[in-house]
Amino acid sequence: MVKIKILDDTLRDGQHALSHQFTPDQVAEIAGRLDKTGVDAIEVGHGNGLSGSSCQYGIGYASDEEYLTAAASVLKHAKLAIIVLPGIGTRENFEMAKRCGVQIVRVSTQITEADIAMQHIEMAKKMGFETRAILTQAQVLDVEATVRQAKLMESYGADVVYLFDGSGYMLPGQIRERFTAMKEALNVPIGFHGHNNLQLALANSLVAIECGAEHIDTCLKGFGAGAGNCPTELLVAAANRLSIETGIDLFEILNIGDELIVPLMPRPMDLTSDCLMLGYAGVYSSFRLFAQRAAEKYGVDSRKVIAEVGARKCTEGQEDLCIDVAYEMSKAAKEER
Amino acid sequence: MVKIKILDDTLRDGQHALSHQFTPDQVAEIAGRLDKTGVDAIEVGHGNGLSGSSCQYGIGYASDEEYLTAAASVLKHAKLAIIVLPGIGTRENFEMAKRCGVQIVRVSTQITEADIAMQHIEMAKKMGFETRAILTQAQVLDVEATVRQAKLMESYGADVVYLFDGSGYMLPGQIRERFTAMKEALNVPIGFHGHNNLQLALANSLVAIECGAEHIDTCLKGFGAGAGNCPTELLVAAANRLSIETGIDLFEILNIGDELIVPLMPRPMDLTSDCLMLGYAGVYSSFRLFAQRAAEKYGVDSRKVIAEVGARKCTEGQEDLCIDVAYEMSKAAKEER
Repeated sequence: MVKIKILDDTLRDGQHALSHQFTPDQVAEIAGRLDKTGVDAIEVGHGNGLSGSSCQYGIGYASDEEYLTAAASVLKHAKLAIIVLPGIGTRENFEMAKRCGVQIVRVSTQITEADIAMQHIEMAKKMGFETRAILTQAQVLDVEATVRQAKLMESYGADVVYLFDGSGYMLPGQIRERFTAMKEALNVPIGFHGHNNLQLALANSLVAIECGAEHIDTCLKGFGAGAGNCPTELLVAAANRLSIETGIDLFEILNIGDELIVPLMPRPMDLTSDCLMLGYAGVYSSFRLFAQRAAEKYGVDSRKVIAEVGARKCTEGQEDLCIDVAYEMSKAAKEER
Repeated sequence: MVKIKILDDTLRDGQHALSHQFTPDQVAEIAGRLDKTGVDAIEVGHGNGLSGSSCQYGIGYASDEEYLTAAASVLKHAKLAIIVLPGIGTRENFEMAKRCGVQIVRVSTQITEADIAMQHIEMAKKMGFETRAILTQAQVLDVEATVRQAKLMESYGADVVYLFDGSGYMLPGQIRERFTAMKEALNVPIGFHGHNNLQLALANSLVAIECGAEHIDTCLKGFGAGAGNCPTELLVAAANRLSIETGIDLFEILNIGDELIVPLMPRPMDLTSDCLMLGYAGVYSSFRLFAQRAAEKYGVDSRKVIAEVGARKCTEGQEDLCIDVAYEMSKAAKEER
């Protein structure tokens, strides 16, 4: 029987959907309930990871230390995980995480920049963390280049290598090619993290599992950035049907989502046109508001701004480009008249 | 280049989500906008098809004739379609449909009962309709039996044969097996109609297309029974990415959904636990309220009622069985104490 390990990411990716305003009490309550279900790991923190709380990414309700302490106080079975982006998280953060009882550190870079993860991975390993590597915006590289970046991560010592489809852009065929090739090329386990901008987070997770992925990220009720993630309860349901073992009770995981997450959700995780466009174009959800504001300012269609930003393969940190794109569109439209 | 034909089912399946209360004016406005996009066909009527308006299924806001006349008055490009369930729709209904300008009649039966469609298909053919056959609750038969029922429909004269996954139960692997076998065995085109109870409506539609399905049903914003259908705009987006031709402009189809459907939606098409359970268990959405009421009456878990109803392979018309199931569960629980 195939077994997979679920990392529940509600308390980290869900922060994006809540403007990073989970309280430590909520974190403790949700983590405590999740801990008893059999999830393998629970990721906690600011949406952008260690030291993510900032004017740029949004100020968190609590500090990393407060969040991690709250979660660690209730965990008996599940491993406590954090994410770190090189350039934001530092050695001091890792030491704090260690003191708080964190077991898994996930080092995340754009898929084109695996090399900047080396120091962080080596440091985390030395400090005794289970260390996992994440390649985000996975769609911008072809299969061969993807495998090359994944092997770099393995060479630095990563215990697991994930592809993240943060824009919810990838189609099942793209997942199949990449996971088949990674499974073949790597010795360490591989993982997947999907978003639902094209309502393919579950379908893509199932393809990844079929191709050998052992680690899947999910969020309760899909509560996460953009159109949300693969819902934890949905993956458990599909896994039951396919005789894939998750160790998680379906009814209890449904209960937790309904009792603790639904009341917190500022909006339902349905598929808005904006979210669909982000997935269609391969644009990260952090661009959405920028595109809307720029489109309004220059009197153009925000969806077309998103499409153009996608065509230019913009990545996180380049959100201001929406202004240039909207300005150029407006200028071109005037010249046409 | 692969081409598919989209039948937009918003004005028929969407009736379920609106308690059959579309007005003829709304039908005319939505059909008129859809007509210009390049959809192949637009299905209109009561959610349960011709003569579906009744105490049992819900009284429609308008009569079949009023709906069809409203739609026919605006259509210039798309074909006007209706659905009919043998045992409900009659010859008189067909004659009225003909007068109203209906071009496509879709005759729908449970997948185990293709034989009861013979007379209706033959009659529709004789009257000059393009006649399509629908096999619902497709999951209850294995691949071989599915093909047998599909071939029966073909032998009666069906111009297209569809599988309907009305409970949103089927997994991509089940779709692949069935459509591969049907494509091999049938001479007429095949089609798919998926629901989103496991967030697989798009993924399953794409698998069906890959295996040779040429006809796909969709609804604007996914607005339909239960967890809703494959969203029209989402299939267009995915088809664009895969170079599958739909003939439909993505931005205009997004506009129609946002301008005309979103304001009518009583609730967002997000994935509630009830809908997920229906998909998990393979139970049609008409059971949902029955299960909830019975569970409340007998103090048991409505989700477990749904799971049991699914295990017993109940089909539409057997909704009262929820009472028996809930009663038995309550009795068993008392005996355990």
